[in-house]
Amino acid sequence: MATPGAVEAKGTGGGTDKMAALKEIYKQLKAEVLEDHAAEIADHESAIQWIDRMVDYNVLGGKCNRLLSVIDTYKILKGVDVLSQEETFLACTLGWCIEWLHAHFLVLDDIMDNSQTRRGQPCWFSVPQVGLIAINDAIILRNHVLRILRRHFKGKPYYADIIDLFNEAEFKVVSGELLDLIITHEGRKDLTRYNETIYRHIAQYKTAYYSFYIPDDYLDCFGDPVFIGKIGTDIEEYKCSWLVVQALKHADVNQTSILFENYGKSDPACVAKVKDLYKELNLELVFREYERELYIKLIANIKAQPNKAVQTLLKSFLHKIYKREK
Amino acid sequence: MATPGAVEAKGTGGGTDKMAALKEIYKQLKAEVLEDHAAEIADHESAIQWIDRMVDYNVLGGKCNRLLSVIDTYKILKGVDVLSQEETFLACTLGWCIEWLHAHFLVLDDIMDNSQTRRGQPCWFSVPQVGLIAINDAIILRNHVLRILRRHFKGKPYYADIIDLFNEAEFKVVSGELLDLIITHEGRKDLTRYNETIYRHIAQYKTAYYSFYIPDDYLDCFGDPVFIGKIGTDIEEYKCSWLVVQALKHADVNQTSILFENYGKSDPACVAKVKDLYKELNLELVFREYERELYIKLIANIKAQPNKAVQTLLKSFLHKIYKREK
Repeated sequence: MATPGAVEAKGTGGGTDKMAALKEIYKQLKAEVLEDHAAEIADHESAIQWIDRMVDYNVLGGKCNRLLSVIDTYKILKGVDVLSQEETFLACTLGWCIEWLHAHFLVLDDIMDNSQTRRGQPCWFSVPQVGLIAINDAIILRNHVLRILRRHFKGKPYYADIIDLFNEAEFKVVSGELLDLIITHEGRKDLTRYNETIYRHIAQYKTAYYSFYIPDDYLDCFGDPVFIGKIGTDIEEYKCSWLVVQALKHADVNQTSILFENYGKSDPACVAKVKDLYKELNLELVFREYERELYIKLIANIKAQPNKAVQTLLKSFLHKIYKREK
Repeated sequence: MATPGAVEAKGTGGGTDKMAALKEIYKQLKAEVLEDHAAEIADHESAIQWIDRMVDYNVLGGKCNRLLSVIDTYKILKGVDVLSQEETFLACTLGWCIEWLHAHFLVLDDIMDNSQTRRGQPCWFSVPQVGLIAINDAIILRNHVLRILRRHFKGKPYYADIIDLFNEAEFKVVSGELLDLIITHEGRKDLTRYNETIYRHIAQYKTAYYSFYIPDDYLDCFGDPVFIGKIGTDIEEYKCSWLVVQALKHADVNQTSILFENYGKSDPACVAKVKDLYKELNLELVFREYERELYIKLIANIKAQPNKAVQTLLKSFLHKIYKREK
C-alpha cells in the first residue's frame, strides 16, 4: 500500500484533526496485518473478525501519549515543525508500534493482576467468550509489532537497531513485571519488605523505559474509576505500591497493625479500611507535595541539559504527565 | 564469551556424548541471558534464581527434535559430515533458540488448555508459587530468543532474515492456536462442525511450521502418561482432535449421541465413556493404518524431490517422528 496523506497536511496543533489523521494511519496498519492473517487463514472469516475486534479493543482507547511523544520527539530532534509525508508516516507507524506493544502488555498485566476494567471497559480477558484466549491474542499483538516494522522499515539501515530497541524495551518491562510479582510473593510473608527503593525499581522498569515514570499507583487507588477508566486492584493484589510504601513510612504502631491485618485481602471491607487509613495519613497531600517537588527537581535537571532540543523534548514529556488525573 | 568446544569434537553418532555437548552450549547461552538479567536487576538475587530455574524447567526435558533437526539440516544442505567449531556452535545456538521458542509456546498452551503435566512434571504454571507469573515467564523466554540471536548473529548479513523467520514461525503458530481456540468455541455449540479439513488446518499451523506435522492427538489420548510425560486433556477441553473427527466419521447414530453427551466434560466418567467409544470404534487400528499410508505417501513424495540432499533431509525428519510413542 502507498504511504497515505501525512498528518500535518490535515491540520497541525493537535486536537481532533490530528487524532483523525493518526487514526487513518492506524486503519492502514491494521488493514495490512489483517491481510497477512487472511493470507494464512482466509477460510476462517470468524478468526479474522476476532483479530479485527481484538486489535481495536486493545490498541485504541488510550491517551496515545507514547505515540504522540514519538512524533514530537522526531520533530524536536530534527528541529523542524513540519515533517514530510513520508517522515510523518514513518514516525506515526513507529508510534503506533509502541501503542501496539503497550496493548500487548496491558492485556497480559490485566490477566496476571486479575483486574476488572481498563480504559473504561472490561479488561479483554473478562469479555464474554474471550477468557484465556487473551493470552494468545496478546502474543498476536506483539507479533504485529514486528510485522509492521518489517513491512515499513525493512531495508532501512537502522532496521536491525529498531528491532533490538523494541526487544530491549520488552526486556526491561518483563524484568520489572518479574520484580513486581516476586516481590509481591515476598511481601505476603512480610509487608515491611516494601520500601521506596524497591518501589522505584519496579516502577522504573515496568513503565519508565517505554513511556515515563510517575507514581501511577496514586491513580490506581484514588483516581475516579469513571475518569481513569479502570478499577485499581493494588490493595487486593498485595502490590508494592507507592501508597503502601508511604503508609508504612508514616504509620504509627496501631496504624501499621491495621495495614498488616487488611492489606492484600479481596474482602471490600478490608480494602475500605486500607483506603481509610491512607486518607487518615493524608497521603493525598503527601503525594501532591511529592509530585510538586519532583516537578521542580525535574525542571532543574532539564535546564541543566546542554542541548536545547533535548530540553524541549523532555519538557514536552513532562507536561504530558504532570498533574495528570488519568 | 568465546565460542566453546564444538559438538562434533566431543563425539559424533548422537547419544550421550552429543547431548552432553549440546547441554554445554545450552549452559553458555543460559549464562549469557542471566548475565543480561543481572545487569538490570542484580540487587534482586531471588529474581535471577527464579529465571535460572524457570529456563531449566521449561527449555530442558524435551526430546530436542527441533534442535537436532537444525544441526542435521545444516550438515545435509552443506553436504558434509563434520562441521567446524564455529559452524557447530552457531547451528546449535539456532537450534536452542527453537527449543526456547517451543518452551515459550508450551508454557502458554498449558495455561490456556488448563493442562496438568508436561514432560513428566507439573506444568510450570501449576508449580507452587508460580501461577500466572508463568505468563510473564513465557514472555521472558520469547525475549531470550531475540537476545541470543542478537548476541551471536548480529552483524551477519542474514541477521534480519533470521529474526523475520522466527517472527513468521510465531505468526503461524499463534494463527493455529487462534483457530484452535475459536473453533473450539464453535464446536461447543455444534460438535458436527469438527471435520478433517479443519483438523488438518489447526495441526498444520500449530506445530508443522516450526517442527513437523503428525496427529499428536493420538498420543494425547492413548499415549502412556508416564512415557509421553503429560496427561492429555483434549477430550475435557472439547478440542477438535484427530480422534474426535475420526469418531464422528465412523460412529453410528447411537455412538454419535454418546459423543454428544460426553465430549467436552471434565467429569472423569464422561472422559472414560469417550475413550471407550474410541476403543469400540477401533481408532487405534484406524490410526496405525493412517500412519502407514501417510508414511508410504510421504516416502513417495520425498523420492520425487529432484535434489538428493533435500531427500536425505526430509527422510531424516520423517524417521524422527514415524511410529513415535512420545
